[in-house]
Amino acid sequence: MRLPIPFPYELEVRYQETDQMGFVHHSVYLVYFEAARVALLRAMGKPYRELEREGVLLPLVESHVRYRRPAFFEDRLTVWTWVAELRPSSFRMGYRITRETEEIATGWTRHAALSPEGRVLRLRGALRELLERGVWHENLDNG
Amino acid sequence: MRLPIPFPYELEVRYQETDQMGFVHHSVYLVYFEAARVALLRAMGKPYRELEREGVLLPLVESHVRYRRPAFFEDRLTVWTWVAELRPSSFRMGYRITRETEEIATGWTRHAALSPEGRVLRLRGALRELLERGVWHENLDNG
Amino acid sequence: MRLPIPFPYELEVRYQETDQMGFVHHSVYLVYFEAARVALLRAMGKPYRELEREGVLLPLVESHVRYRRPAFFEDRLTVWTWVAELRPSSFRMGYRITRETEEIATGWTRHAALSPEGRVLRLRGALRELLERGVWHENLDNG
Amino acid sequence: MRLPIPFPYELEVRYQETDQMGFVHHSVYLVYFEAARVALLRAMGKPYRELEREGVLLPLVESHVRYRRPAFFEDRLTVWTWVAELRPSSFRMGYRITRETEEIATGWTRHAALSPEGRVLRLRGALRELLERGVWHENLDNG
Repeated sequence: MRLPIPFPYELEVRYQETDQMGFVHHSVYLVYFEAARVALLRAMGKPYRELEREGVLLPLVESHVRYRRPAFFEDRLTVWTWVAELRPSSFRMGYRITRETEEIATGWTRHAALSPEGRVLRLRGALRELLERGVWHENLDNG
Repeated sequence: MRLPIPFPYELEVRYQETDQMGFVHHSVYLVYFEAARVALLRAMGKPYRELEREGVLLPLVESHVRYRRPAFFEDRLTVWTWVAELRPSSFRMGYRITRETEEIATGWTRHAALSPEGRVLRLRGALRELLERGVWHENLDNG
Repeated sequence: MRLPIPFPYELEVRYQETDQMGFVHHSVYLVYFEAARVALLRAMGKPYRELEREGVLLPLVESHVRYRRPAFFEDRLTVWTWVAELRPSSFRMGYRITRETEEIATGWTRHAALSPEGRVLRLRGALRELLERGVWHENLDNG
Repeated sequence: MRLPIPFPYELEVRYQETDQMGFVHHSVYLVYFEAARVALLRAMGKPYRELEREGVLLPLVESHVRYRRPAFFEDRLTVWTWVAELRPSSFRMGYRITRETEEIATGWTRHAALSPEGRVLRLRGALRELLERGVWHENLDNG
């Protein structure tokens, strides 16, 4: 079965995620991106906690978010996720958050692959094949 | 030098900690309690990360909070902290949060002492002596 | 259609919700309780943001949690929720979090009903009828 | 008295801010940036909650972070903050987080100025003069 890429992940905004402006706090978008990334890895057959058990950590080395419209409590949002770039020892994930037909935010995160001891791992073999399944060549004006 | 008990810990409310009601979100009080508890342990000469390195984890087994007045963005709060009860293998910390002379919240947390493998540790020896330095017998109507 | 009470709300543990002990941080349980409470209100026909628009805020005045077993990243949890007590101007919600057949945590929150100006509202009329639909008389050893 | 720019803001990493990798979670850096930004505004004589009361909201429209080294529980960090760019109706803040002599992260946030009704405000008059006091022309490789 073919995995839809960008991969859609649905969530609902929690009360705790709002701030006194009445909007979802901007730091929460990185948490939404993370939840979507984890869902994509699982859909590709590799739960993230399994990856960690096998000795592969994927810490962020860079993040970027453009906030286009506020999101509100109880909004149902979709986070569309894909692999935007594969390098020898890092990769970039792309994200687009929508509420029905409106674009709420776009962004990306760059990740290194590390061993638990902090050694940089090359993206090859099974891990590279896994990530290749999520590649999509977006054309977003993403800053 | 004698440690003041209850021990005062000062903090300032962050924007991200507010919610759309305009109040500090109720879950954040447990984070404030934790920051104050960590400060008290350090003031008693035992940083919590040192405790963890020595193989002592202090997970919560129970928490209780009474929210008496809302707290607001940029409020300067004081968290007063003490050891409210010492049992053979658990202890209870007490907390009182004030803004100048107003009482914002009171509460307590009960902790077990565990090894990294999850084995229950008895509170004796150096750890018990440490906690005894923080004991105060409050008389709060604390639910 | 009869609403199942306790009402089940499903969620998945996010990476950001873990701490360096490898457990879900204890403050996050209050966020899980809140998400479940919001889902119950909506299932009863009254989204919480609609309530707020109608001028009813339901701030917490008290919370209590017993942490029985740690929860982990990617765990699928169910939060069972009900109205545990109805008083003239406050009510108590009960919660039980399970992972398959294991009990992870139990707890309760007490709420006041306030107008946006901070005036205490009596629980009567439509609001009381709404809450009555969620009443269940649990018999939990809940501290 | 001359305000030091970049403006130093000190904080200590909280336990709740760590994740199961043992690092400060990447979303928390945006919260640190925000706390430092608020401190800078106050040092310039304009607490952020006063700005909001006067009808000026400063929501983020874009954020960028480079994570250079992990930060750990109980670390004492300094967030260095400045105004990196002033445009007619948006501005960019710059940030650099250090632990003693080590660089932990760098980043920036772009903000619009909005009225509470969501109308875009021009940056002129008192607000522009305020921001001008924080300008520093950094030369960071900041992605």
